[in-house]
Amino acid sequence: MTSLKSKASTVRRGPKRALYDQKAIFEIIDQTLSCTVAQVFDGQPVVTPTCHWRDGGYIYWHGHAKARNLGAGDSDKIAINIHEIDGLVLARCAFSHSINYRSVTLFGTPEPVTDLTEKEHQLYIFIERFFPDRWDKLRPVTEKELQATGLVKMPITEASAKIRTGMPVDDDNDQSWPVWAGIVACQRQWQPVEQHPEQTENYPEPDFTGLVNTIR
Amino acid sequence: MTSLKSKASTVRRGPKRALYDQKAIFEIIDQTLSCTVAQVFDGQPVVTPTCHWRDGGYIYWHGHAKARNLGAGDSDKIAINIHEIDGLVLARCAFSHSINYRSVTLFGTPEPVTDLTEKEHQLYIFIERFFPDRWDKLRPVTEKELQATGLVKMPITEASAKIRTGMPVDDDNDQSWPVWAGIVACQRQWQPVEQHPEQTENYPEPDFTGLVNTIR
Repeated sequence: MTSLKSKASTVRRGPKRALYDQKAIFEIIDQTLSCTVAQVFDGQPVVTPTCHWRDGGYIYWHGHAKARNLGAGDSDKIAINIHEIDGLVLARCAFSHSINYRSVTLFGTPEPVTDLTEKEHQLYIFIERFFPDRWDKLRPVTEKELQATGLVKMPITEASAKIRTGMPVDDDNDQSWPVWAGIVACQRQWQPVEQHPEQTENYPEPDFTGLVNTIR
Repeated sequence: MTSLKSKASTVRRGPKRALYDQKAIFEIIDQTLSCTVAQVFDGQPVVTPTCHWRDGGYIYWHGHAKARNLGAGDSDKIAINIHEIDGLVLARCAFSHSINYRSVTLFGTPEPVTDLTEKEHQLYIFIERFFPDRWDKLRPVTEKELQATGLVKMPITEASAKIRTGMPVDDDNDQSWPVWAGIVACQRQWQPVEQHPEQTENYPEPDFTGLVNTIR
């Protein structure tokens, strides 16, 4: 097991639910669509959402070439959180109510990706992750588009995961309180595809039926 | 229209998609389950997920009484992002692919809520938002539980929203490229409730059918 525990990534609240296992952390990164990137500018914390992907030991995100969230800020280091709500946990008292979730927090220094070949390869991975089997069918990417796209990667070396699953845990004294207890799962589901109303040709529709289970 | 635009909350990238309208911002806060709170500690940005709720002009979150994300950090100010992915946008070239989403970013200084009556009232609002019609059926909250719960509020005065909806926008030259174009919506859906396996009584099941559309 490769541990991604560091001073920054050590979980302070609820350490019993914390994991530092690289495999578990990669899995959550791969199952989710978006993250938030936290930086500091002139002492002011700033947090922006973006879509992420992973290639090997790095997490990637992209944006406008001049976007602030592709750099560092006052500090070299940034923080990223990725989380997904998996359900609601209904206990016998308010205090024991909870949420089932998967969450990963990463710390590190983003590194710009400027080489155009590497950039194009990463955008290929990004597009194929969100829109499988599509890259080869698209109008090819131009050098101007690659130049206008900012891309960064960050090594996944300092990170933690927190996961809660399963049923409510009530105190023994509360077990017999007369109220329904259990969970309500929450799932992301793709809806039927909707073609652009101005497109009248019958091109093959993209297939998103398989994705519900991989990107929950 | 009440504007929540400030120096900190002015959107730098994609300003055409930015809104500062209090009503639109409140709506996104109310439709979503979780947010991320960004702070700085010893110069290091930190970002933690939590569930939020709103009462009037304040956003609230809670945690362990000693949790770091209930305070400020190096700076008085924190930042919060709330976002929800609503779908994928499939264009004719990689560059025009996009995501439909709703996002709100808030800036401000959290204020502790310590008065026990106010705390209990806010936890009531929180529980009723996530678990409707449940508070009165639960084992009543104790003073010890209220003391162990940390609660903060932050005035919603500096904020922005960014929203993307609808179909892909391709350059005129790309319109006739022979590939399917359109959108795939993504929705959060509650699954059937699952009773705790150790609970054998037949208490009335909670009803989550109506919530899919309010908390998407």
